Amino acid sequence: MPVVGMVGGGQLARMTQQAAIGLGAQLRVLAASPQDSAARVCADVRIGEHTSLEDLRGFVKGCVVVTFDHEHVPPAFIRALEEDGTACRPGSAALLHAQDKLVMRERLSAAGAPCPRFAAIPADTALAALEAFGRETGWPVVLKATRGGYDGKGLWILPDAGPATAELVDRLVDEGVALMAEEHVPFRRELAALVARSPYGQGAAYPVVETVQRDGICHEVIAPAPGLDDDLAAEAQRLALDIAARLDVVGLLAVELFETEDGVLVNELAMRPHNSGHWTIEGSRTSQFEQHLRAVLNLPLGSTEPTARYTVMANVLGGDDPDLYPRYIHVMAHDPAVKVHFYGKDVRPGRKIGHVTAMGDDLDEVLERARHAAEYLRSGPAMKETR
Amino acid sequence: MPVVGMVGGGQLARMTQQAAIGLGAQLRVLAASPQDSAARVCADVRIGEHTSLEDLRGFVKGCVVVTFDHEHVPPAFIRALEEDGTACRPGSAALLHAQDKLVMRERLSAAGAPCPRFAAIPADTALAALEAFGRETGWPVVLKATRGGYDGKGLWILPDAGPATAELVDRLVDEGVALMAEEHVPFRRELAALVARSPYGQGAAYPVVETVQRDGICHEVIAPAPGLDDDLAAEAQRLALDIAARLDVVGLLAVELFETEDGVLVNELAMRPHNSGHWTIEGSRTSQFEQHLRAVLNLPLGSTEPTARYTVMANVLGGDDPDLYPRYIHVMAHDPAVKVHFYGKDVRPGRKIGHVTAMGDDLDEVLERARHAAEYLRSGPAMKETR
Repeated sequence: MPVVGMVGGGQLARMTQQAAIGLGAQLRVLAASPQDSAARVCADVRIGEHTSLEDLRGFVKGCVVVTFDHEHVPPAFIRALEEDGTACRPGSAALLHAQDKLVMRERLSAAGAPCPRFAAIPADTALAALEAFGRETGWPVVLKATRGGYDGKGLWILPDAGPATAELVDRLVDEGVALMAEEHVPFRRELAALVARSPYGQGAAYPVVETVQRDGICHEVIAPAPGLDDDLAAEAQRLALDIAARLDVVGLLAVELFETEDGVLVNELAMRPHNSGHWTIEGSRTSQFEQHLRAVLNLPLGSTEPTARYTVMANVLGGDDPDLYPRYIHVMAHDPAVKVHFYGKDVRPGRKIGHVTAMGDDLDEVLERARHAAEYLRSGPAMKETR
Repeated sequence: MPVVGMVGGGQLARMTQQAAIGLGAQLRVLAASPQDSAARVCADVRIGEHTSLEDLRGFVKGCVVVTFDHEHVPPAFIRALEEDGTACRPGSAALLHAQDKLVMRERLSAAGAPCPRFAAIPADTALAALEAFGRETGWPVVLKATRGGYDGKGLWILPDAGPATAELVDRLVDEGVALMAEEHVPFRRELAALVARSPYGQGAAYPVVETVQRDGICHEVIAPAPGLDDDLAAEAQRLALDIAARLDVVGLLAVELFETEDGVLVNELAMRPHNSGHWTIEGSRTSQFEQHLRAVLNLPLGSTEPTARYTVMANVLGGDDPDLYPRYIHVMAHDPAVKVHFYGKDVRPGRKIGHVTAMGDDLDEVLERARHAAEYLRSGPAMKETR
């Protein structure tokens, strides 16, 4: 059975290991530390930096294919690996669109994919360019670092072009942060369309989900998106499959979408298992982690058929108490059917340390169960009662 | 999160690792070799022998609880670990009933559990005792080694007390094999009742399944057992929960049963995840591997609700061709919803190397899908076509 290398030792690699065990594939992870989430659960762990080409070159030896649990590997290094003959999936040319938001916007807009209006913000005329963009689209305006942002980092909503904005832009330009601006879209809600694509070009689409963000971090995911118009759902799936094909994505592609009065707009792309797809571990016949492995190994893709009418995933963030074990016991006793996933991370306030999944026919009940479990794990009273 | 030690590096430990990753528990395995099925997928692997008390004592240091992927640890060694203060679950007193068939029969019969008629076969009067037992129950008679048998090993069906039987019995007695006899039960089919029990005494029962053996090896499992009378199913579940409580089992208990004209009879016991429960990975809200971990960690048990009307598990045995990858691809392409599980073992003819699971509403269709996948993986024509 083949060795798959995954660069990055986070929870996405950790959950990919669960799927690799079933498939019989061997997962090798490149982790920064033996304490990383995935390093704690894999047999084949290499310690190194994803920002070191030497470490990457050592890591890929013996892997039939290399994939990624994040977007932070420098594009030039992925190209160098490809030039060495390493099969990187997704490849550098595709992955660049998940690494650089401006490249993504320019490519998708040119291809006719529905996107918010946007503009590059050149360093030498940053404030003027931002003011001009604000005049065109109206304020507020969304300012983004073109690279490196995630979970609300690298994104600012600017109410106007006043002194606070000028100060922020000056600071970012001084720090060398490449910037772009986007219109602030008055969306109804956020959706995500998750698809997979194999090197042969086989595609598979999961049901479109609703994602709820809080403080820029994914808070909960409802599968399928409740009340979503069937035509719009099909349009979103087609859009995601089309982007995957156009960009030659291999593996998973998560397309984060805004649902507006007029349809959907593309917000962000990710080319890896994605927080909006954690519900598939229990909620789909094939989890996103298995699907990603099947795609990068050029195996036939698995069924995306849902296993329940509704599946709700809620992220568990760290609270003030580092010891959540008593609350863990409470949650399991309270709801024997809720599934708890922990990432093996130390608890820090606001850090994603796990997620919970609930399933059923009655959406209100399923939502309540998932929310109770996630909130209780973060800050429920059990810790006070039991100590 | 706690460290759980599992003695044995087979596929049961391997699949337990998948569940441990989700629960956030750390699984440590004692494997005979780094090539063992579970050693290939765990971060915390200790190499040693389960027949060495020294190796066992080193292994358990730092584990909050120790459990087992097989029955082959000498009972005296488990008692020694317990005397050292190690939490062994199941404990030595319970586990002995899964290690020694005569102890099990005597205990269950005394407790009134329905069992086949049986007799100890003393070494010094073996053939005479066997003849007497055969006169009482009629021939054929089942001869069993009281310890160490599995997958049809250590079990002989004797047609009569003729010369072949005398020769076999002489040889076994010479080898020091402890023996017992059981009546040959004219069963309709075989069933299995899988339950879990926690140290608090919480119990959970899975739906009763039908198991189909071939050459003494589990061939396929149908969940739930089709056409099983509701009262008989409930009786089998109660019987298994009752045995678990009486024997003070902690963890899983699989009770293999014969269904006869008059009800059920206990065939064998196992106190660990069991081949008859592999279907629960996809087919139940809580897999048997997660359930075993929850039970031995004294966590509240998970829901045993089925996730489909029918789930069929078929074992994949090795065929003549060591390279099954081309057949693997075929099976995935043929049926995107069948789930393939590989154990990371080298292929040898007749060796259990994995299993497949199919689910759906139409039993005939589900059976056909699982059988096709398992048979094709073993010996399908794809290998000939693709090379």
